[in-house]
Amino acid sequence: MRYRDSGVDIDKANQAMQRIKTSVRNTWSDSVLSDVGHFGGLFSVPESCREPVLVSSMDGVGTKLLVASRAKRFDTVGQDLVNHCVNDILVQGATPLFFLDYLAAGRVEPQMVAGLVEGLARACAENGCALIGGETAEMPGVYHGDDFDLAGTIVGVVERSEIIDGSAIEPGQVLLALPSNGLHTNGYSLVRRVVFEHLGLDVTDEVEALGCSVGDELLRVHRSYLEPVGAIASAGKVKGLAHITGGGVVENLPRVLPDGCAARIHKGTWPVPAVFPWLAQSGDVPEGEMYRVFNMGLGMIVVVDAETAEAVGNEIADTAVYRVGEIVKGDGSVELV
Amino acid sequence: MRYRDSGVDIDKANQAMQRIKTSVRNTWSDSVLSDVGHFGGLFSVPESCREPVLVSSMDGVGTKLLVASRAKRFDTVGQDLVNHCVNDILVQGATPLFFLDYLAAGRVEPQMVAGLVEGLARACAENGCALIGGETAEMPGVYHGDDFDLAGTIVGVVERSEIIDGSAIEPGQVLLALPSNGLHTNGYSLVRRVVFEHLGLDVTDEVEALGCSVGDELLRVHRSYLEPVGAIASAGKVKGLAHITGGGVVENLPRVLPDGCAARIHKGTWPVPAVFPWLAQSGDVPEGEMYRVFNMGLGMIVVVDAETAEAVGNEIADTAVYRVGEIVKGDGSVELV
Repeated sequence: MRYRDSGVDIDKANQAMQRIKTSVRNTWSDSVLSDVGHFGGLFSVPESCREPVLVSSMDGVGTKLLVASRAKRFDTVGQDLVNHCVNDILVQGATPLFFLDYLAAGRVEPQMVAGLVEGLARACAENGCALIGGETAEMPGVYHGDDFDLAGTIVGVVERSEIIDGSAIEPGQVLLALPSNGLHTNGYSLVRRVVFEHLGLDVTDEVEALGCSVGDELLRVHRSYLEPVGAIASAGKVKGLAHITGGGVVENLPRVLPDGCAARIHKGTWPVPAVFPWLAQSGDVPEGEMYRVFNMGLGMIVVVDAETAEAVGNEIADTAVYRVGEIVKGDGSVELV
Repeated sequence: MRYRDSGVDIDKANQAMQRIKTSVRNTWSDSVLSDVGHFGGLFSVPESCREPVLVSSMDGVGTKLLVASRAKRFDTVGQDLVNHCVNDILVQGATPLFFLDYLAAGRVEPQMVAGLVEGLARACAENGCALIGGETAEMPGVYHGDDFDLAGTIVGVVERSEIIDGSAIEPGQVLLALPSNGLHTNGYSLVRRVVFEHLGLDVTDEVEALGCSVGDELLRVHRSYLEPVGAIASAGKVKGLAHITGGGVVENLPRVLPDGCAARIHKGTWPVPAVFPWLAQSGDVPEGEMYRVFNMGLGMIVVVDAETAEAVGNEIADTAVYRVGEIVKGDGSVELV
């Protein structure tokens, strides 16, 4: 009995490794000291920081992967993963340094691996982040058929004095929202149930309400807010940032609210992408549930002083900004009015 | 239609979060600046380093997870993952700083999550590593039944001048081996096929050749070599280190050999744990294949100068050390004689 007989093909895995080396190397700066294939990735801590604090986050793409599998389009979920992680550390004021990925499948198909890593590498390059390492695991018996999983870890850095932790949030401050471009990377179990099971659609079907195919809408790439928010975040003008992911604005904004504060958000003050009302209507999903599962068009919430709200809003580059609510006295909840 | 109907139970996930907070907090030092539930984990770079280089690695546990599932014993694979990652950065001279985990399952069972995180936290505490973040993903549709996956990322630090990269390896140097305690975390697809399919055994069956049950042998915790190797690695006496994982000594030792060097290993110079001959015989696995898949008792290879071999061997604490071979002129291969 040989290892290949048990469903693991080491040679094929090595071939896949060769294909991805080039894309990966394109994400590297002088800070990367190691080469692909070493045990660990080496990254020198930036000397410009006085008191560097590392900010890290690990995440997956959830069942958006199953949509990618259906559409046989793998690069976009790679981008989703990186951008999601970039946003998760951006809310604490951090700039990305490096990224590592974990890809597991029943059988490593070089085509799939190459697509995923292309996407990871593209988004890493866009966010100035080195794709420094990763693991590709063949796990027959855990993953069946074309099933696979993709997770990643980002490590970034912030000057200790510039950490954004929400402690400066107080009643009277204003909530600015940067728009999402759709579902981003959350709520896909519900989405798949409504779209594929209930409506019986497939990824190639065109939907008039969306103006595109199901696949195009559901695989739209999660936005990175590094460019619009990065400049203002490091200047200390921002009192708090919340990346609106699983749990929606209702669960994510409270994570940065200090004691005695709550948030009030005024519906109708920002554009809700067409995919949300379409899903709510198609799946008969109650409004409260929609706000607890989806971002509803709110990609990133920025908390600023009322006096500087307009000026800060003007400094946010390359995106529309909406004034959607305010901080009020309260118990950490988010009220939608 | 509500999110729970699609198989994702956010409340149950939140309950699991509460259970694991205490174990996780026990791994934290003063360097950890963030609290569980924040978007990213915050860790301040140690001030004692002059030119700190971050060394990171991401890995999974492979199909050893399926053995844990069968035995309903989850803490040991958590320890496996951490110790494996600790060894992977140790070979470059790095000391662990922090760890993040990714756990994905079709349904998050608080019992399973608690067991896994207990194991992660225990091993993190043993290795002086802060368990600083993680993601628990419920992915019905990707994971079926009790299937789950577990991956983790470790970030450690090494002084730039003390990075071990194998460049000082040259012919005439000696290979010392630190013993493994069995399979560690590799080759489980083949193991499961031989043990569960071919022999028809289950985890509770006692095996005379092993002196224990199948479950006890197959779930033995991957050793961390941080304590035995840490002291000598930082003193600069070590020319190269190789953690023997998937691919065996034949594929892992070459990763640190510079051009013009090869390795010769003398069979019979170290004790081979009983599990290996038992598997080879039971599954009729050729010897070459055994060495390409399993560690065969070689957990960590330490390359040292011939003159200092005995002295360095004596400094390695808390473990037996075997002189198993030498560096010779060659093309990067490993010859077993």
